[in-house]
Amino acid sequence: MALKTMLKFSRGFRYQSLARTTQSFSTHDQDEGGWNRTRTKSSGNFTQVAGAAVAGVAGFCLYSYLNEPAVSAATKEETTLQAGEVKEGLPFYSLDEVRAHDDNEKRIWVTYKQGVYDITDFIPKHPGGGEKILMAAGASVDPFWASYGVHKNADILKMLETYRIGNLSEEDSKVSLHNVVDPYDSDPRRHPALQPRSLKPYNAETPLKILADNFFTPNDLFFVRNHLPVPEIDLASYEIEIEGVGVKSMKLNLEQLKKFPKYTVTSTVQCSGNRRSEMTKVKPVKGLDWGQAAIGNATWTGVRLRDVLLAAGLKDDQPGVEHVQFEGLDTDPSMHPYGASIPIEKAMDPKGDVLLAFEMNGEPLTRDHGYPVRVIVPGVTGARNVKWLGKVIVSGKESDSHWQQNDYKGFSPSTDWDTVDFSSAPAIQELPVISAICDPVQGDKVKPVDGKIPLRGYAWSGGGRKIVRVDVTWDQGKTWGVAKLEQESNKHPYHWGWTLWTLEVPVPPNAKKLEVWVKAVDSTYNTQPEGFANIWNLRGVLSNAYHRVTIDINTGKK
Amino acid sequence: MALKTMLKFSRGFRYQSLARTTQSFSTHDQDEGGWNRTRTKSSGNFTQVAGAAVAGVAGFCLYSYLNEPAVSAATKEETTLQAGEVKEGLPFYSLDEVRAHDDNEKRIWVTYKQGVYDITDFIPKHPGGGEKILMAAGASVDPFWASYGVHKNADILKMLETYRIGNLSEEDSKVSLHNVVDPYDSDPRRHPALQPRSLKPYNAETPLKILADNFFTPNDLFFVRNHLPVPEIDLASYEIEIEGVGVKSMKLNLEQLKKFPKYTVTSTVQCSGNRRSEMTKVKPVKGLDWGQAAIGNATWTGVRLRDVLLAAGLKDDQPGVEHVQFEGLDTDPSMHPYGASIPIEKAMDPKGDVLLAFEMNGEPLTRDHGYPVRVIVPGVTGARNVKWLGKVIVSGKESDSHWQQNDYKGFSPSTDWDTVDFSSAPAIQELPVISAICDPVQGDKVKPVDGKIPLRGYAWSGGGRKIVRVDVTWDQGKTWGVAKLEQESNKHPYHWGWTLWTLEVPVPPNAKKLEVWVKAVDSTYNTQPEGFANIWNLRGVLSNAYHRVTIDINTGKK
Repeated sequence: MALKTMLKFSRGFRYQSLARTTQSFSTHDQDEGGWNRTRTKSSGNFTQVAGAAVAGVAGFCLYSYLNEPAVSAATKEETTLQAGEVKEGLPFYSLDEVRAHDDNEKRIWVTYKQGVYDITDFIPKHPGGGEKILMAAGASVDPFWASYGVHKNADILKMLETYRIGNLSEEDSKVSLHNVVDPYDSDPRRHPALQPRSLKPYNAETPLKILADNFFTPNDLFFVRNHLPVPEIDLASYEIEIEGVGVKSMKLNLEQLKKFPKYTVTSTVQCSGNRRSEMTKVKPVKGLDWGQAAIGNATWTGVRLRDVLLAAGLKDDQPGVEHVQFEGLDTDPSMHPYGASIPIEKAMDPKGDVLLAFEMNGEPLTRDHGYPVRVIVPGVTGARNVKWLGKVIVSGKESDSHWQQNDYKGFSPSTDWDTVDFSSAPAIQELPVISAICDPVQGDKVKPVDGKIPLRGYAWSGGGRKIVRVDVTWDQGKTWGVAKLEQESNKHPYHWGWTLWTLEVPVPPNAKKLEVWVKAVDSTYNTQPEGFANIWNLRGVLSNAYHRVTIDINTGKK
Repeated sequence: MALKTMLKFSRGFRYQSLARTTQSFSTHDQDEGGWNRTRTKSSGNFTQVAGAAVAGVAGFCLYSYLNEPAVSAATKEETTLQAGEVKEGLPFYSLDEVRAHDDNEKRIWVTYKQGVYDITDFIPKHPGGGEKILMAAGASVDPFWASYGVHKNADILKMLETYRIGNLSEEDSKVSLHNVVDPYDSDPRRHPALQPRSLKPYNAETPLKILADNFFTPNDLFFVRNHLPVPEIDLASYEIEIEGVGVKSMKLNLEQLKKFPKYTVTSTVQCSGNRRSEMTKVKPVKGLDWGQAAIGNATWTGVRLRDVLLAAGLKDDQPGVEHVQFEGLDTDPSMHPYGASIPIEKAMDPKGDVLLAFEMNGEPLTRDHGYPVRVIVPGVTGARNVKWLGKVIVSGKESDSHWQQNDYKGFSPSTDWDTVDFSSAPAIQELPVISAICDPVQGDKVKPVDGKIPLRGYAWSGGGRKIVRVDVTWDQGKTWGVAKLEQESNKHPYHWGWTLWTLEVPVPPNAKKLEVWVKAVDSTYNTQPEGFANIWNLRGVLSNAYHRVTIDINTGKK
């Protein structure tokens, strides 16, 4: 039940309470019952208050995801340290004075470290929705930012400082933050070869150069996409709850889950933001600065969601059922879980292969990949492959989580943060066709052998659409070579795994550089767009234009 | 049983027999029994000879499809008439001399009208495969070309003349062609508004400007894609044969077919070659010169193929079954039917909506659209929506028809007719996402109203993938407007029908021309490639790059 993580969040949360709503929150028992009450918002005045606080907390949290920095948090430490420090020449305010500014009429103030900020004018620009941020009014943002280390990057802090109006009084600033516990303290250790894109939450990708070396990506080198701290789960109390329309509510522990027929499926998992770093060069986007390796391929072993839902009494074509929602046991400071949903047709498709998986490449899941059980939704974007599965809800509606409703959607290149209407676009499910050159990587210096350079990479398409061809050009499209493909062959109508490809490309005599492009074609003969400008979108998702790499040629001459 | 058409072909066929293989073919009874024997190649010496002849005839026929002219046959009448005329200075040969040249060692000769040609060197270049053309060796091509009027276009005749070696003797050229009957004589009358792309076989598209006026394309204006003469079918003897692996052979007349549950499905049907005329501008391709209207949308009423196959005893996941083949009653001169197949998963998908359809937009099918019964395979290219359905074969293999094996496939832009290996690419089934501007059309002169011009068009994607956005730009991609969509709304997981769209685009003051582009995005967030150069393929299929139209602006000034 992720109890330890919960308690850490609760402590941070209590600090927030002390600063603003002591009375309400001092009654919030930091035990499992309290956690349950907050999540279910079942009844009573306490719950109401907690529910309201939840909205605000969630608002601030969500802000952090929408503003995932395009640079690693760790790289701009200096700027980070300057923000929130005392600024000469600005007035000093007490916590009470700050607290008095908690609505639009009185202006909305917040504190960060010793800085006081009037964020009233920022609220309408808040990507997660203006109303959500309001619960942070008149108080400190520190405990949230302790949870979301990703906030502490130069861009966000610089933006915050533009709203600076004063300093917190010396006395009140002595209210120490030492009781704010870092909920990421218990995150697992990771392999040092992983390339982090953010540390808290931890997001990292496989070194690109080795990505195409293995048809099955090694577990410890598989990209990690966490939205929240990794929950600490005690197998002894672990259960998956099944509930909703057309099913009899039930709870399954791991042992009970494993009694269903066991299946193993090869499936590629890819983040919607893979290759975002290329799109952001056209015009900045908000999100983790993923290279080309926020993707991996593995075998997943578990039981079929369909079998579990049938056992819970769900019928095919049950009226009123349109989606299956998943909740993770990873939670934000308000105890809101990570959530996502998939269409019922995918969930119940006998050939859809949606698994509640407990093994990855034949080993039990690691904590970063969802131990003890995660959902695998083959052909569908990683965000719906919910890790640390806590709950399955059969419903007429999509998940109302931020990640389903207000993130992971595509928009026109002319849609910006002022005009975006997240309700106008469908949540990403199946992903479009994509490919990348993994080796050599941009800027590698390579010596041709017999006038040729070998390239290798991957190609993949969502929805089980098999890659039927990979085209590579070394002369800006005048000539296209057809790559040799490595892929699983089977009679299954869907092809969930990726395709690795190789091709030797010719190097013109005396060339000092060679620019190579790759594009893939899938079984529907969809192919990739040529460039990023016309598929640009404000979140930098679906970044599947041709991958173009320039190689330095080692001519062997001085 | 298409008897009339068959007899016409038989007569042409007999002429061929007279010229070369009188003995074999004079025993070929031109009745329904003979037709059956030819098709089934069941046994005996006669059948063997017929079978061999079939291969050759088919070879020549196929050549005609692969070389569908990019210009209408009717436009170059003059060149057509010159080919095959007596050429001064060349030797004269008798039919016996021609007949003696029927293999590679002796060289391979054919005649066309009074021309004699040595086509030995052309055989390896024959797109339909060298071995197939050999049965025409030592004889006249005239009867085939009477059947395939499309041959009589300048490009093919010019090519033929490059192989000219002599003239047919005056005496033998008196062997009249008057007994060759035109098998297209009994084709139906068509609406004069249709825009023909070839006359024999008849292929025509809807006038583009009116295509987006109707969500359901009127039957008489719906594009027509015929590969062969339209069969004349007598309902009294009409039956569909069901046979193959895992089914009990059975025959269903229309009355029996209609006893199955009746379904109506909205489905767009599109030719794989739609918009070929844009791709061919990059570099010539072989195929009918389709504009943007080889596509239409209709309701189709019939019974589910799944229901029929279940009634014939087929089980879901029947071992050994991978495809369902269809044969039309439209046949080539050798009585080979048009054929295609679809994967068993599509055929048996309870939500796949594959119909044996007898109504289109609520009316019985017209002859051009497959009367009395055609297959509708929603989301799949038109070529698999077999018309005039004669036979359904459940099989472990794809259809071995030319159109499944050696046509309707995609290749790399660097693959040409010398290097193409049709077995290396999958037969097109689901089509990629596409869109077009229908009104205004290229070159229209339009007067802006309030500085704006309204555009309208269509967008569609194969596989039931719904269109989720249509983007239009009027400034080469600097600004993209999001079009208003008209589409059916339903709870079905697949969206087979097209989407119509409209958008008013701004015209800069004093602009004399405005170039507008459109691209669509489907529910997998696949979108269209930007240009044709990098998706070019030798057959000009899958031509789904951005549609770009230049409009002349009526400024109201002289």
